[in-house]
Amino acid sequence: MEHLFNNNLFERKNFFSTINYIEAKSVIDLLADLKPSPSINKNILIKDISSKSLIRKNSIIFLDELYSNPTKEDLLVISNIDQKNNIDYIKVNNISQAYNKILNFMFPHEDIHADNFDNYNYLNGSYISKYSKIDDSVEIGSNCFIGRGVEIKKNTIIKNNVVIKNSIIEKNVTICDNSTIGSTGFGFNLNCMGSKHVNPHIGTVILKENVYIGANCTIDRGKIDFTFIGKNSMLDNLIHIAHNVIIGENVCIAAQTGISGSSIIGNNVVIGGQVGIAGHIKIGDKCIIAARSGVTKSIPDNSKVAGFPAIDIKKWKKFIINQRVSIK
Amino acid sequence: MEHLFNNNLFERKNFFSTINYIEAKSVIDLLADLKPSPSINKNILIKDISSKSLIRKNSIIFLDELYSNPTKEDLLVISNIDQKNNIDYIKVNNISQAYNKILNFMFPHEDIHADNFDNYNYLNGSYISKYSKIDDSVEIGSNCFIGRGVEIKKNTIIKNNVVIKNSIIEKNVTICDNSTIGSTGFGFNLNCMGSKHVNPHIGTVILKENVYIGANCTIDRGKIDFTFIGKNSMLDNLIHIAHNVIIGENVCIAAQTGISGSSIIGNNVVIGGQVGIAGHIKIGDKCIIAARSGVTKSIPDNSKVAGFPAIDIKKWKKFIINQRVSIK
Amino acid sequence: MEHLFNNNLFERKNFFSTINYIEAKSVIDLLADLKPSPSINKNILIKDISSKSLIRKNSIIFLDELYSNPTKEDLLVISNIDQKNNIDYIKVNNISQAYNKILNFMFPHEDIHADNFDNYNYLNGSYISKYSKIDDSVEIGSNCFIGRGVEIKKNTIIKNNVVIKNSIIEKNVTICDNSTIGSTGFGFNLNCMGSKHVNPHIGTVILKENVYIGANCTIDRGKIDFTFIGKNSMLDNLIHIAHNVIIGENVCIAAQTGISGSSIIGNNVVIGGQVGIAGHIKIGDKCIIAARSGVTKSIPDNSKVAGFPAIDIKKWKKFIINQRVSIK
Repeated sequence: MEHLFNNNLFERKNFFSTINYIEAKSVIDLLADLKPSPSINKNILIKDISSKSLIRKNSIIFLDELYSNPTKEDLLVISNIDQKNNIDYIKVNNISQAYNKILNFMFPHEDIHADNFDNYNYLNGSYISKYSKIDDSVEIGSNCFIGRGVEIKKNTIIKNNVVIKNSIIEKNVTICDNSTIGSTGFGFNLNCMGSKHVNPHIGTVILKENVYIGANCTIDRGKIDFTFIGKNSMLDNLIHIAHNVIIGENVCIAAQTGISGSSIIGNNVVIGGQVGIAGHIKIGDKCIIAARSGVTKSIPDNSKVAGFPAIDIKKWKKFIINQRVSIK
Repeated sequence: MEHLFNNNLFERKNFFSTINYIEAKSVIDLLADLKPSPSINKNILIKDISSKSLIRKNSIIFLDELYSNPTKEDLLVISNIDQKNNIDYIKVNNISQAYNKILNFMFPHEDIHADNFDNYNYLNGSYISKYSKIDDSVEIGSNCFIGRGVEIKKNTIIKNNVVIKNSIIEKNVTICDNSTIGSTGFGFNLNCMGSKHVNPHIGTVILKENVYIGANCTIDRGKIDFTFIGKNSMLDNLIHIAHNVIIGENVCIAAQTGISGSSIIGNNVVIGGQVGIAGHIKIGDKCIIAARSGVTKSIPDNSKVAGFPAIDIKKWKKFIINQRVSIK
Repeated sequence: MEHLFNNNLFERKNFFSTINYIEAKSVIDLLADLKPSPSINKNILIKDISSKSLIRKNSIIFLDELYSNPTKEDLLVISNIDQKNNIDYIKVNNISQAYNKILNFMFPHEDIHADNFDNYNYLNGSYISKYSKIDDSVEIGSNCFIGRGVEIKKNTIIKNNVVIKNSIIEKNVTICDNSTIGSTGFGFNLNCMGSKHVNPHIGTVILKENVYIGANCTIDRGKIDFTFIGKNSMLDNLIHIAHNVIIGENVCIAAQTGISGSSIIGNNVVIGGQVGIAGHIKIGDKCIIAARSGVTKSIPDNSKVAGFPAIDIKKWKKFIINQRVSIK
């Protein structure tokens, strides 16, 4: 996994017209409402945000658990619990609000806030950011939107009315009509709802070589890191891929399936139509998930599951047969 | 509920380039094919349509049941059953056809019929009706369509390729890419199918302050009144909200959920992904509906349900455990 | 069924800027990697592709089973199994690759490959192919794309941000906002995944008179023949109709339902919301399919089914009641 993160580093600054750096000590002022304590001794300039998956240089990490990595001089920990290990950190009474306050300060995060249309080229009804990087061989249909920082490599085909933001798209990818790639994920907090309080998302979507995305799909950007679809994977229509999902290579997903946030799908997985996969679980390599399954728990390599909650497909079939017998 | 309707009155005429008023007595001629009887004595000018939820001035109401409110001088009742109470009414042999005939006469109802593109301003690929009312602070992305009568208040963000018609949108709302807000609802009649016979819809969508709508969602306009989403409620991607649905405040709905026509969702309800909610039911305040539930009946405040048909979540979990045990 | 195919013939060449005809003997060279044998004696010029449903003039058919029709002089059979009956055929070791190789040679198949924007008229943000045939009475909203070969007849209404390709649309049809009609179907091969290996689709979508399509739907083009929706049928929002599906007349389909490839839906069928219908099955006339059903097998005329896997609705209700009783 670390491998995956290190091989897919991206430059945060490509995606933002402005990033407001902030002195570690000024962070305390910004969080004044959240009773920050104790004061910290570090005097670093914060330029980025880290997640548990990837620690970035000169960054802040938000933690609701103990920090377990080796102390880094250029990392500022903000937490709502007491940290040990002699690390410098800022304690706050609300970690979600701390996250929102700092990210809203550092990143003008809303997808259309960040830019203005003078920075776009117009081509066949499509608006293409002057700060995107698109290979000449790429074909783009009509009425698309390609946002700041987006990279699209050789021979990729973008059909019509496609919206692409915050994405790095490798060669030979196809994205069909009316799909939305790289929009903000569903970052809500049940104690503080509403669009004004949506959690800022600053991550990307990474689509590797030869990926195929059908029509009217939505693939949300990562919250801090990325949402990832591996080489040769293919998605049918009306599919939803939430923030931070990682999909391996050669994965086949049929229509109307949804994958919840932060789940990991292995290589060579086959997923039927109208499947739901819960958040924060792991589907092993070479799994087969029957149509209309609801997968609620992690499953190991080579599993074949069906039903809701999904179980081994042989057991499920037996169960269904018994059920049928019981209904005279 | 009455409260909700009275606090959210809207001017029907804002949304139509023409409304053809009709004398009560001419209604009889218009319905000649439907054997209208008896003749009525009223001599009022019909300007609007009423529903059981809200009686409007100088209007018609269509009823397939007894009219139970106090008689109003300026209300014309059309019904397919015999009314009592000495009220003046027109009886017809097909109430659905009567509805279609009168609404098609009074309202050039189809969303794109009603207008022509000379009445639109063009901005960054977006077409914005000159008869809409949009605050200067509103940000609108590329390739959107904002139709006649639409109101959008302060600081609302409309992303790209969004279609908004027949809607009143309060401040600080966010609507993500490729969503369709205020399109005609699914008004079919199994005895008379086809696009020519679709029931006219003349209502609105009302999105209150701080609502968040994800990407590729569809929110249909009300049939006569409105489809309503209350303050601070948040919707993920690929969600369908049918005509006349009323959603309270602080409601959280995960991706790919669908809510059928005329259902009412209370405040502070949490709804998982891929849930289906049947039509004409009521979900109480503070309910929690697990992912992939199919809710077929009304549920009281504070219910927690799961499964299909949805039942109490504790019972459902017990049931699932028993089921698992029975499968060796 | 033959009737249906013969009544809905379309001119393949209308949909392609170039079709590369190929001599039967050159086909062997094109398939050199797939160990073609034996050589054939025919000297015909191949101009089209046939399916088992419809044999076209001067065409190739790809078969993974015995060819059972009377031998035709102008038909070239390519198969991965030994054919009998003294027919001339080319045997290959991989029929899927043979299909891809020949179709990619003959048809520049990708929807946006086939054309360039000089061949489009621009109207209110919509791009309309000069090689489409659209009646003057048709209303087209803003920011649509209407591709090469598309025919749209009298009084049809296309709303906003709609993408229509490879389609023949009869009169009085309505297509609502953000829908995608006629995009390539989900043609994958688990042994050879990725967008570069997507199976070419060269078929059409046929929407008959008075069809109604809701918002944000996807209807894929047929693989070789067509995806078909019969007269007066109505679809709600966010519905997926896969390649080669045939839907009869007066069919009513509620929101978020998906129908998998090559299934056949009879006349006067009513399908609830969030239903899934498996591929290659047949739903008889006048069937009723309850909301959230998963139909896995063909069902005869007049069936009423519910549940997943769907069973007779009375049995299902009894089963649910028993289940409820068993949960104390």
